[in-house]
Amino acid sequence: MADKKKVEAITSRDVDFAQWYTDIVKKAELMDYSSIKGFMVIKPAGYAIWENIQKEMDRRFKETGVENVYMPMLIPESLLQKEKDHVEGFAPEVAWVTYGGGEELQERLCVRPTSETLFCDFYAKDVHSYRDLPRLYNQWCSVVRWEKETRPFLRSREFLWQEGHTVHATAEEAEERTIQMLNLYADFCEEVLAIPVIKGQKTDKEKFAGAVSTYTIEALMHDGKALQSGTSHNFGDGFARAFGMQFTDKDNQLKYMHQTSWGTTTRLIGALIMVHGDDNGLVLPPRVAPTQVMIIPVAAHKPGVMEKAEEIRAKLAKSFSVKLDDTDKSPGYKFAECEMRGIPVRVEIGPRDIENNVAVLVRRDTGEKTETSLDDIEETVAKLLETIQKEMLERARAHRDAHTYTAVNYEEFKETIETKPGFVKAMWCGDRACEDKIKEDLAATSRCMPFEQEQISDVCVCCGKPAKKMVYWGRAY
Amino acid sequence: MADKKKVEAITSRDVDFAQWYTDIVKKAELMDYSSIKGFMVIKPAGYAIWENIQKEMDRRFKETGVENVYMPMLIPESLLQKEKDHVEGFAPEVAWVTYGGGEELQERLCVRPTSETLFCDFYAKDVHSYRDLPRLYNQWCSVVRWEKETRPFLRSREFLWQEGHTVHATAEEAEERTIQMLNLYADFCEEVLAIPVIKGQKTDKEKFAGAVSTYTIEALMHDGKALQSGTSHNFGDGFARAFGMQFTDKDNQLKYMHQTSWGTTTRLIGALIMVHGDDNGLVLPPRVAPTQVMIIPVAAHKPGVMEKAEEIRAKLAKSFSVKLDDTDKSPGYKFAECEMRGIPVRVEIGPRDIENNVAVLVRRDTGEKTETSLDDIEETVAKLLETIQKEMLERARAHRDAHTYTAVNYEEFKETIETKPGFVKAMWCGDRACEDKIKEDLAATSRCMPFEQEQISDVCVCCGKPAKKMVYWGRAY
Repeated sequence: MADKKKVEAITSRDVDFAQWYTDIVKKAELMDYSSIKGFMVIKPAGYAIWENIQKEMDRRFKETGVENVYMPMLIPESLLQKEKDHVEGFAPEVAWVTYGGGEELQERLCVRPTSETLFCDFYAKDVHSYRDLPRLYNQWCSVVRWEKETRPFLRSREFLWQEGHTVHATAEEAEERTIQMLNLYADFCEEVLAIPVIKGQKTDKEKFAGAVSTYTIEALMHDGKALQSGTSHNFGDGFARAFGMQFTDKDNQLKYMHQTSWGTTTRLIGALIMVHGDDNGLVLPPRVAPTQVMIIPVAAHKPGVMEKAEEIRAKLAKSFSVKLDDTDKSPGYKFAECEMRGIPVRVEIGPRDIENNVAVLVRRDTGEKTETSLDDIEETVAKLLETIQKEMLERARAHRDAHTYTAVNYEEFKETIETKPGFVKAMWCGDRACEDKIKEDLAATSRCMPFEQEQISDVCVCCGKPAKKMVYWGRAY
Repeated sequence: MADKKKVEAITSRDVDFAQWYTDIVKKAELMDYSSIKGFMVIKPAGYAIWENIQKEMDRRFKETGVENVYMPMLIPESLLQKEKDHVEGFAPEVAWVTYGGGEELQERLCVRPTSETLFCDFYAKDVHSYRDLPRLYNQWCSVVRWEKETRPFLRSREFLWQEGHTVHATAEEAEERTIQMLNLYADFCEEVLAIPVIKGQKTDKEKFAGAVSTYTIEALMHDGKALQSGTSHNFGDGFARAFGMQFTDKDNQLKYMHQTSWGTTTRLIGALIMVHGDDNGLVLPPRVAPTQVMIIPVAAHKPGVMEKAEEIRAKLAKSFSVKLDDTDKSPGYKFAECEMRGIPVRVEIGPRDIENNVAVLVRRDTGEKTETSLDDIEETVAKLLETIQKEMLERARAHRDAHTYTAVNYEEFKETIETKPGFVKAMWCGDRACEDKIKEDLAATSRCMPFEQEQISDVCVCCGKPAKKMVYWGRAY
């Protein structure tokens, strides 16, 4: 019978979270390091997750009227420099192309770190009248930022993302779109990735280079560190003034456009790992899992087993993404491999099961085993996948809530940050000096000023002056 | 009533094909020029075509076991140089990154012009045993080649494509995969894009840098020029030897892998334009059209018209990609716009139609108008779209066949090339000197040695020596 031999043990999550993370990305075959420092190879198991994220997010974008486009991957230096905050924010971390076709270029071109400047350049020429507005464009592409420290999916010199860039006739409409996309991201994370998020606004210190306001969704990883998981920016008319993006309004006046941008990245794969994974490997929510069900025959050499397994596969394939492991590995090895890859449900089927017209269903998230009649296996699996999706979100939310603390004075704040990994809700006076001090002292940052404000105390947790906002603080990736 | 005012007339296809092409890409809003020479902006109408190409082609790839991955966009110079033919072929047209994060790089990195070297580097490390083979990877991405002359979609310094890279245990398997993917491309072009293609092998002069053999699909544009529309390469073990890509085979011997690569690009959008377009604009085959049906209300202000138009839209939306043009432009303007964008079927619905429970269907490809009862409009449209798809392919094939000539001696060959735009089938001795002479004299190239060979004569059309192969010759994009 099946000896449950491990694929190869990984570091325990509680012993060394960073090493556990690295083990998972490698052993679940999500990525590999490339020969170019800081650049990674996304392998089929990792890319298939990204494809599922793309597919569902893109569908949601399009429902709100967004259209996809493609902009050049290179940006002339003069274009990057047009908006002064933006160039200050990005110039230090770009890669420069200086030669093309054997000749030195007259002007160097940077590989896009983000494409605001290209969209501005385009909209300035392409939009003339209020009738041309709004423009709701998005692109799926890769970008390059020359990071010093890199980690797979979380921070790398190249990453895949989507960047939406919209222009509007009024400030109100731009603000509305900024919030709409943040809500879309939050719903996507909760409904598809089973990751609960805090929605809020970034402080001026933490906002995007060139934005009037940046909104964010912040998720809490299993180790108590925060992960910024998506951002949505309102640029006001700042870029529009720098790029001369004007249109003729209904009243026949020439006006500046109002602009937004919003993005999510392959970082979401890192979030999936760090929110749901365990010591046996990846745990994927059914809605984003490339393979939702794996069928593993037990005693596959016995007559009728493979045939029945294939019959079940064909039946389930009508409704789910399902695979049959018909390799000659041992069942135990297959079980472990299936766990490492985070496949939500595995179906075990052997001679005795067939005799009894049943199969065993095993949940990846809880390990729970149940028996199901083969007659209604389709229905049972459908319900089970829904239950898993729902309970994974509930567990992640419970974990986050259990690791969200409050602090009313600096002593309490310091102790909490240092001894209890998680979010700390605390009041803030609005001064950057306090943010700087907290970062310096405690290596913690303001994650966001949440939309759902609470009055925890009247004074700033850092300086004791009158408080303006309740802020989520934490150490972050 | 509707005056059929033109959106804005474009140059006639027969007067100036090149200008006609440029007019279409602009007026159908497929693309726009960017501020970076040779780089384009792909606008929503153009990108939506690419998305449809991707979706259907990707589905076909996956059916054959292909998996998607993502490789770095930058390649270290030392990696590019490992295979000598390959570096000679590509080095002159790459863009070099020399600075990153404010510092000069120790080794310069080129923006990928194609990713063979990265896949080789990866497979060399990742594949150990025959059990790891075959590996059937593909990626969708953009690449950069510093072309001197550029034309939208046909030749630009950056383009979108897919590049498949596979490794196999045997030479036979690699050759089989090379041909399999070429057939997949050919079927895709005929079944989805309604573009008939000639399948064949490139001569040594025209093959890919580093390949043992290159197979191609060649299509004929309306102006009689050829367009290479997809290629599939067998690398043998050439790259494997250069990159040390070895595996332990069943017999316990260390062997070199056998390798293929295959690609198609946004060039296919150019092919769609040049095969099917006419003087009223783009003509899209239903299977790749982002909008298959446009509903245009006539006398939309009359009571009940908009309601009925919306009712039809909702009904058709169950089976087709359909839009209702409810703007305040005149019907005539809408008709012309719909034609310019190549939408396969437009539905006209006005007060008198509603009275009679009918609508008028207008085919984009032929201009033919038919009346349909509203009761079975869904079925009628379904049949009409199928008919259009089928007849567009037939017309394209008839056009190609009518512009395919044969020549048995150089005089005839020269006259045909110079006076009859199209393919010329003629025999070839196999010597590069003859290809060089034909290119020099007539600006024509060998398009391919077709799989379906014919014995047109016994001697080479150029030098008169004994012939080895029948070749399709032509002027090409």
